[in-house]
Amino acid sequence: MERNTFAACLRAVRENAPLVQCITNFVTVNDCANILLAVGGSPTMAHDIREVEESVAGVQALVCNLGAIEDVEAMRLAGKKANALGIPVILDPVAAGVTTIRRSACATLLEEVRFTVIRGNASEIRALALHQAGGSGVDVAAADAVTENTLPAAVALCQSLAQSTGAVVALSGAVDILTDGVQTVLLRNGCPTMSRITGSGCMLTALLGAFCGANASPLPAAAAAVAAMDLAGERAEALRLQKGTGNATFRTDLIDAVFNLTEEQLTQGVHYEVYQG
Amino acid sequence: MERNTFAACLRAVRENAPLVQCITNFVTVNDCANILLAVGGSPTMAHDIREVEESVAGVQALVCNLGAIEDVEAMRLAGKKANALGIPVILDPVAAGVTTIRRSACATLLEEVRFTVIRGNASEIRALALHQAGGSGVDVAAADAVTENTLPAAVALCQSLAQSTGAVVALSGAVDILTDGVQTVLLRNGCPTMSRITGSGCMLTALLGAFCGANASPLPAAAAAVAAMDLAGERAEALRLQKGTGNATFRTDLIDAVFNLTEEQLTQGVHYEVYQG
Amino acid sequence: MERNTFAACLRAVRENAPLVQCITNFVTVNDCANILLAVGGSPTMAHDIREVEESVAGVQALVCNLGAIEDVEAMRLAGKKANALGIPVILDPVAAGVTTIRRSACATLLEEVRFTVIRGNASEIRALALHQAGGSGVDVAAADAVTENTLPAAVALCQSLAQSTGAVVALSGAVDILTDGVQTVLLRNGCPTMSRITGSGCMLTALLGAFCGANASPLPAAAAAVAAMDLAGERAEALRLQKGTGNATFRTDLIDAVFNLTEEQLTQGVHYEVYQG
Repeated sequence: MERNTFAACLRAVRENAPLVQCITNFVTVNDCANILLAVGGSPTMAHDIREVEESVAGVQALVCNLGAIEDVEAMRLAGKKANALGIPVILDPVAAGVTTIRRSACATLLEEVRFTVIRGNASEIRALALHQAGGSGVDVAAADAVTENTLPAAVALCQSLAQSTGAVVALSGAVDILTDGVQTVLLRNGCPTMSRITGSGCMLTALLGAFCGANASPLPAAAAAVAAMDLAGERAEALRLQKGTGNATFRTDLIDAVFNLTEEQLTQGVHYEVYQG
Repeated sequence: MERNTFAACLRAVRENAPLVQCITNFVTVNDCANILLAVGGSPTMAHDIREVEESVAGVQALVCNLGAIEDVEAMRLAGKKANALGIPVILDPVAAGVTTIRRSACATLLEEVRFTVIRGNASEIRALALHQAGGSGVDVAAADAVTENTLPAAVALCQSLAQSTGAVVALSGAVDILTDGVQTVLLRNGCPTMSRITGSGCMLTALLGAFCGANASPLPAAAAAVAAMDLAGERAEALRLQKGTGNATFRTDLIDAVFNLTEEQLTQGVHYEVYQG
Repeated sequence: MERNTFAACLRAVRENAPLVQCITNFVTVNDCANILLAVGGSPTMAHDIREVEESVAGVQALVCNLGAIEDVEAMRLAGKKANALGIPVILDPVAAGVTTIRRSACATLLEEVRFTVIRGNASEIRALALHQAGGSGVDVAAADAVTENTLPAAVALCQSLAQSTGAVVALSGAVDILTDGVQTVLLRNGCPTMSRITGSGCMLTALLGAFCGANASPLPAAAAAVAAMDLAGERAEALRLQKGTGNATFRTDLIDAVFNLTEEQLTQGVHYEVYQG
């Protein structure tokens, strides 16, 4: 993957202005819509089972965010329709291992829908890959967090999930892992304050919809989306430290930074490597 | 319509502090509540079918936002009760033409509820007026956008819908059209960044509730609400260009600008004309 | 209650990082999550009846916010489970007296769940204590607002509700009243602009979850949560007056102020007295 691929993927988003349908949770739905508008896409949050199939026929990507656990049937219907139409589908398995219905929902969705990208934190990816219960709440469990020591095992887990599902797997953490099961890319951008707002993960998943809706190759598209989010986080963190503000201003500055992100910033700022495992 | 009418309508909102019930979508509900508080009104977002009729009896206006497509029955019940009590009802036909259930919901609501104001973008107004399918997502379709060339046809469409429904029709766009079917007013304020945040339309619809709840005449009330929103957008845009911020800060500045909007700003800033068609 | 108790309770929140499950309304759910992250806690907003009991087993506190009137059964199930596990449960009886289903929901919840803290405005506390209908919308009715003249009667009402329920009662207003039925504390912090944003009350209730989840004694924990919120409000108000901003920036600054609140600010800024009734 070339360094200028990131910028090319961002340019495609702005040129194509993809319409992204998100079936997503009520906690962060407004942020997801605004970050889609910030990056140059357009959001629709239609999620009623009576209209999702009709709605998805007019969009460039579909995002299924399991935070909306009550909308799993809508995700299944919309996902199958998107598959039939060749529209990319992104899965965010929020709190995948935490409760019985979430494990069951993941199993159903993975069985019936082909996902283009699956994005989660280490606990969620582990729960999907190993069909395990685990964790509480929506944040990564301390024991699951990826460190330099546990990186090879985490990469192997992501590759295994990518191979079994056919999806690009994007594991978010201090190191971001992206893999299609063959090629694996690591990104080392972002900042700790991203975990002090709700919706960092959900917003990234929305961006994955925009990037996959505007670019044909999922792995570079996903890597560019992750890089865009992380660099926006770095910009917002710099502003927070400079202004002495907190997590609420950080959230606003993060979306603003996506709005103002240039191709040059992306090319120059991204810290990535192709993983040689 | 006199220039000082706009300020008089704003003053009435602040003096009466209307309580506005919004049956509205989860994407922008928080923004709708905060902009109602900004303008000097008070929000209640009760939408459960078991309580909407009881709730609406205590408010000064009801807003039905079709983004909440799952709440159409609540809108119908609350709308009929509001009609019986003489409380103004505002309709925002979000994505009216996009799916079958939305066209059906619009038909039901227009048949059973008398609306004081119907506010939408050009695609939504067209779908209502012509009972047509069309568009995808929640934004205006490029082919529907009102230009100076298509303005006479758009005005005629609005007038026709106003006459058939008895509502003031407010079409939002680069030029805003307001008509009760007899008198028509055009407004030329606002800024392009309003379409780069989610909820510009929903927030305006909420403001229409506040202005109609505090003023007896719907056409000037609606024109004043549109002017207030557009001038707030212009103020937020000036700040955005000055500060180099993005759409998230713009959203915050927009609500702030409504909070701080003065009668004098409204009188001096509004660009309106009575349309001689 | 000693002055340094407030800071000690805040310190415990930051040291224990309590996971707080909120069954709360869609209007302010994002703000509730972000203020929990701001104070050093962690949010989960699981509210599906199929998973709330499983979810609550992994958290340090449960918040039941009656704004989510459609989730009363989830609150009942989660509340009973929390009681069985010794996890503190906070009730926010939003608009308690306004409609029939809200009065009924309150009766059910008070009968079946033991609450650690009940927090509401004067109209809501009155509705709970006297089983009365009253009010419209979600704000305190003017006739119910606590003044220095009506303070003794308001305290007596809170004490009565505390004694009948076993909960600490926290009445929010210009004067905040906190009582466990025996000891009563008054706080005189905060600012008027807190009533010009949606969610001041909901966010405080979320903070009560964090403080009770990290501290064993409910009365000082609740008093510290109220003091933290009110001091953050004072900080945000000072910024608003200085910058000439509005209620939207105020909301952002309020959450930021919780993020940056120091133990020293809390110790020095709180205006409290133990009530000698």
